[in-house]
Amino acid sequence: MKILFKNAKILTMKDGHIFEGSVVIEDNLIKEVGEVDLSASYDEVIDCEGNLLMPGFKNAHTHSAMTFLRSKADDSSLHDWLFKEIFPREDNLRKGHIRELSKVALLEYISGGTTACLDQYFFPEEFKETCDEFGFRNVILGMYDEKVRPNEQILKMYDEYNNEKDGLSKFVIGMHAEYTGKPDMFDKTAELLEKTHSPFYTHLGETASEVEDCLSRRGMSPLEYFDSLHFYDYGGAIFHGVYLSDKDIEILKKRHITVVSCPASNMKLASGVAEIKKLLANEVNVALGTDGPASNNALDMFREMYLVTGLQKIISKDPVSLPAFEVLKMATVNGAIAMGLDKAKYLCPGQYADIIMIDLQKPSMQPINNIISNLVYSGSKDIVKMTMINGKILYFDGKFRIKEKISDIYDKVQKMSDELGIIRKS
Amino acid sequence: MKILFKNAKILTMKDGHIFEGSVVIEDNLIKEVGEVDLSASYDEVIDCEGNLLMPGFKNAHTHSAMTFLRSKADDSSLHDWLFKEIFPREDNLRKGHIRELSKVALLEYISGGTTACLDQYFFPEEFKETCDEFGFRNVILGMYDEKVRPNEQILKMYDEYNNEKDGLSKFVIGMHAEYTGKPDMFDKTAELLEKTHSPFYTHLGETASEVEDCLSRRGMSPLEYFDSLHFYDYGGAIFHGVYLSDKDIEILKKRHITVVSCPASNMKLASGVAEIKKLLANEVNVALGTDGPASNNALDMFREMYLVTGLQKIISKDPVSLPAFEVLKMATVNGAIAMGLDKAKYLCPGQYADIIMIDLQKPSMQPINNIISNLVYSGSKDIVKMTMINGKILYFDGKFRIKEKISDIYDKVQKMSDELGIIRKS
Repeated sequence: MKILFKNAKILTMKDGHIFEGSVVIEDNLIKEVGEVDLSASYDEVIDCEGNLLMPGFKNAHTHSAMTFLRSKADDSSLHDWLFKEIFPREDNLRKGHIRELSKVALLEYISGGTTACLDQYFFPEEFKETCDEFGFRNVILGMYDEKVRPNEQILKMYDEYNNEKDGLSKFVIGMHAEYTGKPDMFDKTAELLEKTHSPFYTHLGETASEVEDCLSRRGMSPLEYFDSLHFYDYGGAIFHGVYLSDKDIEILKKRHITVVSCPASNMKLASGVAEIKKLLANEVNVALGTDGPASNNALDMFREMYLVTGLQKIISKDPVSLPAFEVLKMATVNGAIAMGLDKAKYLCPGQYADIIMIDLQKPSMQPINNIISNLVYSGSKDIVKMTMINGKILYFDGKFRIKEKISDIYDKVQKMSDELGIIRKS
Repeated sequence: MKILFKNAKILTMKDGHIFEGSVVIEDNLIKEVGEVDLSASYDEVIDCEGNLLMPGFKNAHTHSAMTFLRSKADDSSLHDWLFKEIFPREDNLRKGHIRELSKVALLEYISGGTTACLDQYFFPEEFKETCDEFGFRNVILGMYDEKVRPNEQILKMYDEYNNEKDGLSKFVIGMHAEYTGKPDMFDKTAELLEKTHSPFYTHLGETASEVEDCLSRRGMSPLEYFDSLHFYDYGGAIFHGVYLSDKDIEILKKRHITVVSCPASNMKLASGVAEIKKLLANEVNVALGTDGPASNNALDMFREMYLVTGLQKIISKDPVSLPAFEVLKMATVNGAIAMGLDKAKYLCPGQYADIIMIDLQKPSMQPINNIISNLVYSGSKDIVKMTMINGKILYFDGKFRIKEKISDIYDKVQKMSDELGIIRKS
């Protein structure tokens, strides 16, 4: 299968340079970029009409299936939200739920220009099934769970998912967080990391109290603790990273650990603002994540881009903080690095054909004075005209190219959300 | 002309209750809401397919024609931005420019669900012309200008615009700001207010230095100064209101002055965060504005809604701050109050037919657990399916119903933006 995109503006993300040309896709890879033989034989020719092609966004921290909790418990205190609204409803989750609930999230990713996500939630095998069905690239965080997922099974998934021929999934090892970890979980996770050499992923430094509690319990920060266990010997990422000491930042740098910042979630839950400028000054890789739809509530990388730079400008009282191209890198290249997707970083030959087309004819993109600035400062989901993942177009001009009827997906998810929304008295 | 919207969910904004029913429009007004005679004769029947009808957003502070400066000078310091990038290019503006440059902004308002704006910029008569051409509701801020607009002319515009039969424009009196006001401007503005009894509008409390400078120059805050001149005897609004003393807040309350908060602009220019919670606790009316496209850079009321509550949650360290319905009121009813548009507050009989349809079939609106929460926390411009102003549909399903070809508008604005972008050495 050979597809030609002609008459495009192209942003490879190797740098901020934008040029005019064509892109040739062969099967799931980018074959040629720039001047190509327009008269060669192609299975499909798409005239971009001067619109922009660029790598898709990488959402490096999310809990996709939490769609069922969207708008269920907003405007409540963090403790009540988590313990009275979220956890009791999550207790209702059973086999079969995640497969359906994830679909709404995938539709939102795809129509918003996100081509891959790192997902952490219950029943990861069901999330993988849905991603395979839709054709969505994903990295799944496998976590030891005494009851439902012993290490044997995790290792089996690790081998299977990572060795699938032309697979869309990767599998990595993680934990929920230091504060929810029981002693055996740390041991079992250490075993997993030792056997797989996987990078390690976890929530870390989301709230001040989380760090304070760990300091008083263990005499060290959560990051220092994980590092003392050699969990970061093969790198990895921390989700949120709002509360980090200078010593933590040294560890991040030394161990090549990414900070996945989730500015919308941190803002809505009043957690705080991560010090991104300081992290970048210390050469720490920073990526972006939406967190789940219960805490954000959108799965919208344009929102995260605007917020990550806006909040830095506010806290540093300096409008020069975090310029547009740095932000665009966080949402694309840096995310791919965080997720270990080396072939999903750039719009260049040999890389995965995970490409989006930006509609420069939307009013918010006009006039075209500076496309990168337009994307970051006036961009929103409505400017995404096309989303291609692994060489397949999944969304074009407002229409999904998904087998299942969209209204059927919504009906099922609504029914589940209603059922799962009932909190059984304990 | 009689239009029936049937099979709708309806949010009047009188309260947060949403019900199913129909809406009948007759000419430019809402005629019936709820259960209506579906078999009566209508010129057009629109099946809403269960989607939401609600009042359009009111953008209570903007400089629409600044589209030509969008993305021209981002990521620079406030002083350089204003004095090296913005002012020198604005000096290039001549007759004929504003008429064209405003068009891109109107397209962005309309497609993003904004049905009225309060605009403050050069050549207001040209802005009015474009609004009339498009069918966009507007409030124009007239300001005395020694060279181009003496009081005589302002009073003429005031009478004409406010007395037009079925006109889309209102005309009110304002100044740019205390810090740009020369002595004669205050005198001339006092004269205008005395003759018109207009509410008074101005930028106020945007930066800390603006307030400090005024305090040291005049021994009072800008708001105290304007109040001492009796400028607020007929109410009005201040734009931004980030830096306000307790005494200022007393004046706001006493004089029924709205604070038009512009959270995106204040964030991007690193100005600070307005204390909205405190203002509301003191019964001050708070509306929302985008500010101009050079400082935001989008003209997107969904962005402002998310930011105004998110930033309050962050600065107050309290996720309960500013719940969703309060925010939605700011973006609609409170804006109409700020702009003196008493007939554009609610989706109720007798009010202007300024209505938007929200596409509840977008993934970010699913599942439908709480529509108001969905609108504020996961809404974005792509969920606007239809925009009607003054009984006319200006946008439906991604297409504008505007006479002029959209690409012609863009071509003209691009050419102007390129020409006006050249800074002549002084």
